[in-house]
Amino acid sequence: MKLGPGREFDRIRRFLDSVGPAPGVAVGPGDDCAVLADGTVLSIDLSIEDVHFRRSWLTLEDIGYRAAAVSLSDLAACAADPVGMLVSLAISREENAGIGDAIMAGVKEAAALYGAPLLGGDLTRSPGPIIVDVAVVGRAQRPVLRSGARPGDAVWVTGRLGAAARAVRDYIAGTPPARDAARAFTRPAPRIAQARWLAERGVPTAMIDLSDGLAGDAAHIAAASDVRIVLRSRDVPLHDCARGALDLGLAGGDDYELCFTAPDEIVGRFLSAWRGAFGELYRVGAVVAGSGVAIEDEHGVLHAWEGAGFDHFAGTP
Amino acid sequence: MKLGPGREFDRIRRFLDSVGPAPGVAVGPGDDCAVLADGTVLSIDLSIEDVHFRRSWLTLEDIGYRAAAVSLSDLAACAADPVGMLVSLAISREENAGIGDAIMAGVKEAAALYGAPLLGGDLTRSPGPIIVDVAVVGRAQRPVLRSGARPGDAVWVTGRLGAAARAVRDYIAGTPPARDAARAFTRPAPRIAQARWLAERGVPTAMIDLSDGLAGDAAHIAAASDVRIVLRSRDVPLHDCARGALDLGLAGGDDYELCFTAPDEIVGRFLSAWRGAFGELYRVGAVVAGSGVAIEDEHGVLHAWEGAGFDHFAGTP
Repeated sequence: MKLGPGREFDRIRRFLDSVGPAPGVAVGPGDDCAVLADGTVLSIDLSIEDVHFRRSWLTLEDIGYRAAAVSLSDLAACAADPVGMLVSLAISREENAGIGDAIMAGVKEAAALYGAPLLGGDLTRSPGPIIVDVAVVGRAQRPVLRSGARPGDAVWVTGRLGAAARAVRDYIAGTPPARDAARAFTRPAPRIAQARWLAERGVPTAMIDLSDGLAGDAAHIAAASDVRIVLRSRDVPLHDCARGALDLGLAGGDDYELCFTAPDEIVGRFLSAWRGAFGELYRVGAVVAGSGVAIEDEHGVLHAWEGAGFDHFAGTP
Repeated sequence: MKLGPGREFDRIRRFLDSVGPAPGVAVGPGDDCAVLADGTVLSIDLSIEDVHFRRSWLTLEDIGYRAAAVSLSDLAACAADPVGMLVSLAISREENAGIGDAIMAGVKEAAALYGAPLLGGDLTRSPGPIIVDVAVVGRAQRPVLRSGARPGDAVWVTGRLGAAARAVRDYIAGTPPARDAARAFTRPAPRIAQARWLAERGVPTAMIDLSDGLAGDAAHIAAASDVRIVLRSRDVPLHDCARGALDLGLAGGDDYELCFTAPDEIVGRFLSAWRGAFGELYRVGAVVAGSGVAIEDEHGVLHAWEGAGFDHFAGTP
């Protein structure tokens, strides 16, 4: 399983590189989730204060909610039904135990909303930052992977992009973000129901959740599927909060919408049912032979995408 | 499911307290592992620099190995066969990427030794400490829980205790620990094979792995099983490195031997086969009606155990 380009991805690939196929494991490191032979789906997502968020940006409940939602979004990416979650939490000795309760209240709110009850966890002291690591477990009879995109497929996105990245930009600049932008960052909505709906109808050939930014995440699909993805800049659906800011839509990250590939005719067959159930769906590009990601500008000129989305080792916060 | 006494346990119980039974979940928070209805067994264990270890005590490989082994020990406690693990790793931006490779080399060494291949993970920047969180997945047809101990059972331990705690005490005092003590701390051996052997023969009525110290972990069994456990001080098997230091055997922690309860006649039936396969087994006490843990001293006098093992919020490293 290949990962996309970029320094962080290279590191992850190297760190997680396994010793080859293992018994009972259908999909190992490199996709949004690991998939066991019996359809058990697993993923883990680490949230650390001053790396993934600053405390001034979020309430304690938001910190817990967001950590859980972001991890659940990996289950959505694979079209898995949530079964439950395990949560590791670390807070400093100086802090009131109420901080842990508030964070866990947010975790449990997301857990209840998405049907992923708390199965267990670990609580320890942190030498400083709040640390929340959420491992999610799900089931998928037909998991959708990153690796199934085929030339001729179109590329689809389940919602408008850039609002959460707009909030982060505002936070860093010291400007209070608009309410919708703040909410997009603090309360991401994993697209569990949407993914299940699509997978039940056999729509997606490949799928990912948008955590790094549309272009960077499309690069993951392109690499895993051994194809090229062309995104049309005029078709990238920008949230009202990100109007005119194509960079936020392409590279902002933290959207947690689904991006999937599927032929036009398949999507067309289900489009009105989808719109009745969920509303928005955007066609943002095409899958072609080749590799990597290109952006087609408003004049029809193609630009190779060199970025790699958000890199925790290069970027801020 | 009840947990034992003590501040940390109270916090964990409150944090993890769930909203009641969930579909598909056989055992929720409070045991060593969560158990799903299909026999999938899950646990998670967070290791943080300057909380669980200091960098001067361990090589980078040891840090990874120990984090993985400690989490695998939870699978042993439930008599589960390892299926795989997910690892979240955070290292600071200032550190060489080689640090992550070395830590993951240790993780992979433990993963290979115990048949728990790396299924996936997350890599992020840390604002300071090394953070390694390991979620383990296993299978158990007949998981052994903390809650099955019955009055009349005896209490058994699979190896000698106190060596790892001796090493920690020496490290803190600035004294280089003896080689065996250092190895007990840096390379704990999860008793996966021993647990499987015992469970296959239906020996244990309840089981736990010794992470907090014999007395504190016995208190978990006592609370979950609604019984009293009496430990005989003269029968606590102390490692050569901990000779004369009963406190290290009772409350030192980090032993990762199994402690289980079972009637004498059942253990007696299998004892010579056990000795042939694994060597050591120690009878350390008895299960009686009541609650809590008591220590019987060399004069036959009982002392209620008030401690609660290692509390990350109270103790050092």
